[in-house]
Amino acid sequence: MKKMKAAVLNKPLDIEVKEINIPEPKENEVLIKVQCIGVCGSDVHYYEHGKIGRYVVEEPLILGHELAGDIVKAGSQVENLAAGDRVAVEPGVVCGTCEYCKSGRYNLCPEVQFMATPPVDGAWSEYVTIRSDFAFKIPDQMSYEEGALIEPLSVGIHAMQRGKVHPNDKMLITGLGPIGLLAIKAAKIFGVNEIYCSDVVPYRRELAKKFGATKVFDPTQDNIHEEIEKATAGSGLDIAVETSGNGRAVQDALTITKRGGRIVLVGLPASSEIPVDITHIVDSEYDIHGVFRYANSYPTAIQAIGSQDLGLEDVITHKYRLDNIKEAVETAVNQKDTSIKIMIYP
Amino acid sequence: MKKMKAAVLNKPLDIEVKEINIPEPKENEVLIKVQCIGVCGSDVHYYEHGKIGRYVVEEPLILGHELAGDIVKAGSQVENLAAGDRVAVEPGVVCGTCEYCKSGRYNLCPEVQFMATPPVDGAWSEYVTIRSDFAFKIPDQMSYEEGALIEPLSVGIHAMQRGKVHPNDKMLITGLGPIGLLAIKAAKIFGVNEIYCSDVVPYRRELAKKFGATKVFDPTQDNIHEEIEKATAGSGLDIAVETSGNGRAVQDALTITKRGGRIVLVGLPASSEIPVDITHIVDSEYDIHGVFRYANSYPTAIQAIGSQDLGLEDVITHKYRLDNIKEAVETAVNQKDTSIKIMIYP
Amino acid sequence: MKKMKAAVLNKPLDIEVKEINIPEPKENEVLIKVQCIGVCGSDVHYYEHGKIGRYVVEEPLILGHELAGDIVKAGSQVENLAAGDRVAVEPGVVCGTCEYCKSGRYNLCPEVQFMATPPVDGAWSEYVTIRSDFAFKIPDQMSYEEGALIEPLSVGIHAMQRGKVHPNDKMLITGLGPIGLLAIKAAKIFGVNEIYCSDVVPYRRELAKKFGATKVFDPTQDNIHEEIEKATAGSGLDIAVETSGNGRAVQDALTITKRGGRIVLVGLPASSEIPVDITHIVDSEYDIHGVFRYANSYPTAIQAIGSQDLGLEDVITHKYRLDNIKEAVETAVNQKDTSIKIMIYP
Amino acid sequence: MKKMKAAVLNKPLDIEVKEINIPEPKENEVLIKVQCIGVCGSDVHYYEHGKIGRYVVEEPLILGHELAGDIVKAGSQVENLAAGDRVAVEPGVVCGTCEYCKSGRYNLCPEVQFMATPPVDGAWSEYVTIRSDFAFKIPDQMSYEEGALIEPLSVGIHAMQRGKVHPNDKMLITGLGPIGLLAIKAAKIFGVNEIYCSDVVPYRRELAKKFGATKVFDPTQDNIHEEIEKATAGSGLDIAVETSGNGRAVQDALTITKRGGRIVLVGLPASSEIPVDITHIVDSEYDIHGVFRYANSYPTAIQAIGSQDLGLEDVITHKYRLDNIKEAVETAVNQKDTSIKIMIYP
Repeated sequence: MKKMKAAVLNKPLDIEVKEINIPEPKENEVLIKVQCIGVCGSDVHYYEHGKIGRYVVEEPLILGHELAGDIVKAGSQVENLAAGDRVAVEPGVVCGTCEYCKSGRYNLCPEVQFMATPPVDGAWSEYVTIRSDFAFKIPDQMSYEEGALIEPLSVGIHAMQRGKVHPNDKMLITGLGPIGLLAIKAAKIFGVNEIYCSDVVPYRRELAKKFGATKVFDPTQDNIHEEIEKATAGSGLDIAVETSGNGRAVQDALTITKRGGRIVLVGLPASSEIPVDITHIVDSEYDIHGVFRYANSYPTAIQAIGSQDLGLEDVITHKYRLDNIKEAVETAVNQKDTSIKIMIYP
Repeated sequence: MKKMKAAVLNKPLDIEVKEINIPEPKENEVLIKVQCIGVCGSDVHYYEHGKIGRYVVEEPLILGHELAGDIVKAGSQVENLAAGDRVAVEPGVVCGTCEYCKSGRYNLCPEVQFMATPPVDGAWSEYVTIRSDFAFKIPDQMSYEEGALIEPLSVGIHAMQRGKVHPNDKMLITGLGPIGLLAIKAAKIFGVNEIYCSDVVPYRRELAKKFGATKVFDPTQDNIHEEIEKATAGSGLDIAVETSGNGRAVQDALTITKRGGRIVLVGLPASSEIPVDITHIVDSEYDIHGVFRYANSYPTAIQAIGSQDLGLEDVITHKYRLDNIKEAVETAVNQKDTSIKIMIYP
Repeated sequence: MKKMKAAVLNKPLDIEVKEINIPEPKENEVLIKVQCIGVCGSDVHYYEHGKIGRYVVEEPLILGHELAGDIVKAGSQVENLAAGDRVAVEPGVVCGTCEYCKSGRYNLCPEVQFMATPPVDGAWSEYVTIRSDFAFKIPDQMSYEEGALIEPLSVGIHAMQRGKVHPNDKMLITGLGPIGLLAIKAAKIFGVNEIYCSDVVPYRRELAKKFGATKVFDPTQDNIHEEIEKATAGSGLDIAVETSGNGRAVQDALTITKRGGRIVLVGLPASSEIPVDITHIVDSEYDIHGVFRYANSYPTAIQAIGSQDLGLEDVITHKYRLDNIKEAVETAVNQKDTSIKIMIYP
Repeated sequence: MKKMKAAVLNKPLDIEVKEINIPEPKENEVLIKVQCIGVCGSDVHYYEHGKIGRYVVEEPLILGHELAGDIVKAGSQVENLAAGDRVAVEPGVVCGTCEYCKSGRYNLCPEVQFMATPPVDGAWSEYVTIRSDFAFKIPDQMSYEEGALIEPLSVGIHAMQRGKVHPNDKMLITGLGPIGLLAIKAAKIFGVNEIYCSDVVPYRRELAKKFGATKVFDPTQDNIHEEIEKATAGSGLDIAVETSGNGRAVQDALTITKRGGRIVLVGLPASSEIPVDITHIVDSEYDIHGVFRYANSYPTAIQAIGSQDLGLEDVITHKYRLDNIKEAVETAVNQKDTSIKIMIYP
């Protein structure tokens, strides 16, 4: 059996590149040569803490779930895809038979096998297998980097869908990590023209401007509510997309939109409970939508990236070879403000 | 000019029945002889405290906004309605020209003139005028009491619409005051079959059972989550409708539905902020909907009440003549648990 | 290998009961002892003509797809279900991986294996297997007949969902065969109170009244438009549900609702093209929705039937043993007007 | 009383510029100096035939309803607008009190006063009054021409809203008159990337390419269905927007989208009835949506035009002074293929 390199997290802070067997695709799976794969905040969190909420790393685990690559082998039942196809991978395989799957909300499937979520291995490795309906062909002009970025972009796309975004919406995005920055791009895909953004880190605010933000705010300095009233000539915000998980940002998002406004909650707070002004929510007749991963977003992303120059790759701040994975992850740990998206090349 | 009796709140706790002029309907208004009008929690709150949030009673004010009666005069431009018609009154007249009015969410109109909300007088009086499109004909077989109850029932109907209720929903209603009890009826109008209810007051739980609740719970005694898991054979709750404003009930509502569930917030908490588990909302991909009054609900209510015996009047626990208005309001103040809906007869 | 009886259609008009092998359930399937199974219009059409549109009976085929029964064996991977469970069967097994399946519209799955649609065998037999997620437990108090009727009732439920039915809708159902009659029940499940119905056959109109129609019309005698204007006091129809496939009924449905109205098309016309007043559709800003089978309807049906006495079985006009299948089908052929639903007992 | 010039249609083919009184704005109206106003197909139709369907020109009528200009006087109750403001005018004033107005579909208001629809005068004149909530401020950088084009663009925006357009939709627009061409722009506002177009006139197809069409087809030469299958790599069309009213185009639109597809009908056919394949609609589970004018579209248009260079003015092929109105209308009559949008300057 052929061998490949893979980055294995043995326990918190202990990651090493090992030789392991190349997996064999099942009849409805494809085997992919990973060309480019991102480092996600969740990967870093597992690296540092060994768990996220109810998910605990109990056995050595391969991390990584934002990837693009080439198909090298297709299982016997796979149609539509073949060796040589360039693909982006949606990393959560679902059952297709539960009530969530059957009603179009497969991201809530309780049987999901999601890469790099214990005990399911991810793809910081040279090869990986996936069920063929979760590998999406990408056009020739799309880079592997763009293909790998579809995964975090998908969270933004799903946020737009959950928030029933309309081109005329005036939007605030709070938090400008990779999810927040890519949410700017997702908003543009949905035709949104007025996108206000806030983050405490100046570097991220600068990036947001480059990404197409209408105006950026520093929540520690600016009165965002007043600034937006001014910028929108009093018409106010239609929708807030909260991606930071910061308690104060959540509170702001839940009070700043106008009556009848919508709030999309994407960021996961560290603290267990945040004081919320329920009366304001009721009186304003808000709609609030949680976002958990994404569903049916890959075709939208691929078509949009293929149709226009979205400049997605501007989110990439660092690149490492798989052999240097420890350095890559340490960069993410130590440069939280300025390492936006780190890419790994196996 | 003809005179009529009206109950005027001079200042908190000081209410008196006076003789005042019968109002003259404008060309697009109707003059209504009030036959039956309810006491709402907001009326009682103004009576006790002289204000609700930003609304302060600064001048003597007539309270009351849940009414039915007979048209005695119609303005010159009024078609469709005429003297002699029995009508239920929707008590908030809106501008018809703002963005909310034009997009079907007229309940959020900033120019609304809502009865018994300072400085707009209500209808604890013998006569009242209203713009004709807010007076709805009721069929002969419908009682004035039912007509007056359409107003609080409308909050429930609007809650069902905001929550996109489906007949297969398993629903929890928290809080069994008049709004919560009538929400049971609203749920039944929308075809809901499984309606779980909770309240700390035994009398209200008994009423809920009479109103059609599938099961009732005492939140101080029962593990509602476990009970509902059992009652639904593990399928869990689809939607929670919170009408109490109680902090603990709000927290329960925001954690108890299954993944992908919906929460409708109707009750206004007394405390300004309630600690909320945001992570659970995000991870469960909840939809949360505030409810402020109602819109386009009267035709639904009238058709439903006219088509089936809903037993709405069971919510009425006390009846008073307008002359005894002080006694009526004091009953509401002193018997909070057992005075559900008090009706006034001018 | 054990044997069972099955009714096999060799070619048009040639159906016989044979002994064949009892199928063996795969690991994710259940084997069901069929207790009760309906005769559908499509079964009769295959019997008479050997084909429906693009589907042609080229090999001997077992018909029948409206069934309930008992599980006698469950495959090794089946959880949630076990031998002894009483179940209703949703007869179309889908792939779970295509874009339709993933977006909640699995009824449009191009890979569907639908019972009694060539070349997939149906269940006019003593036993049948089905993937376990398409077998739904029914409560003890539900009869097998009701369980079998969930299939045609599901078309009505799906029609209500596709038509975004609201309890205040004034509805017209055209065509009162089993689908139209059960659509009355579906409308009631969704809280609809005003249900007007039309059919040329007096017996069917009588049944419709028994089923809860507000008023019934004979399209050859009555001016339905005028009658409904009168019955609704001029407010008009909100929605028409066309189940007959009759050209004239389709035209009526597409002109009779008020501006902004909705039309749900369920019936399949025999003629290939029907002249339609497109200007009226545009000018009235109608919404028109096709209905193909159903999706996610079984839980709704089971809960509704379990919660109230819907009187579904009134649709059954004849009952036959499987041995008498030819007589059953001939009854359907020869008594089109008065044989509504025929049940087969293997 | 001050006088102004206005183009009055006395009877078919008889239009003249006369001096008439400048209208006086009511308290909730504004008086507008018309700077630029378009010629619509309906104007031309009234000019040629004196009627459109149920609307007949019985008295001399001023035509024109696509306009932008400057406010010269505001009624006493008008807030938000003042003399000097540049505005685009939405030309249909609605009642604000009927069920359509109250539910957000004010375009269906039976009491609408729509400019240039008999007996309501339009704005081919130097001045015109309108209720202030139908005059929308336009930003300084927006031209009067763009302001005037918001009206026909609004039909496209409404079509996108009615069709629930998603950025990933593959769209076909049939008919490339001004409505079809501006629908391309509307689709782009909603983020649509793949827009296929068809028209029999080569000049219009060329314009469509300039407007951003992905590919254009000649329905008399091309097999559009096959071409689109190829262009979309077999995934097919999600939505067709029919703007021509041509019988064959309507039939194409109603058969060409994939299963589960949507069709938006905008064009009004000349012939009263068109043969339609109903079976295909049912079997494909299509959604078909009529479009009558528009609602709540102006803010969307103004923001989009203000945020990006849409190139709207490319639709303008001719410009005339009001004095030459007869020449302008005759151009529209005689050069149907190549006169797309004609602008009038009073």
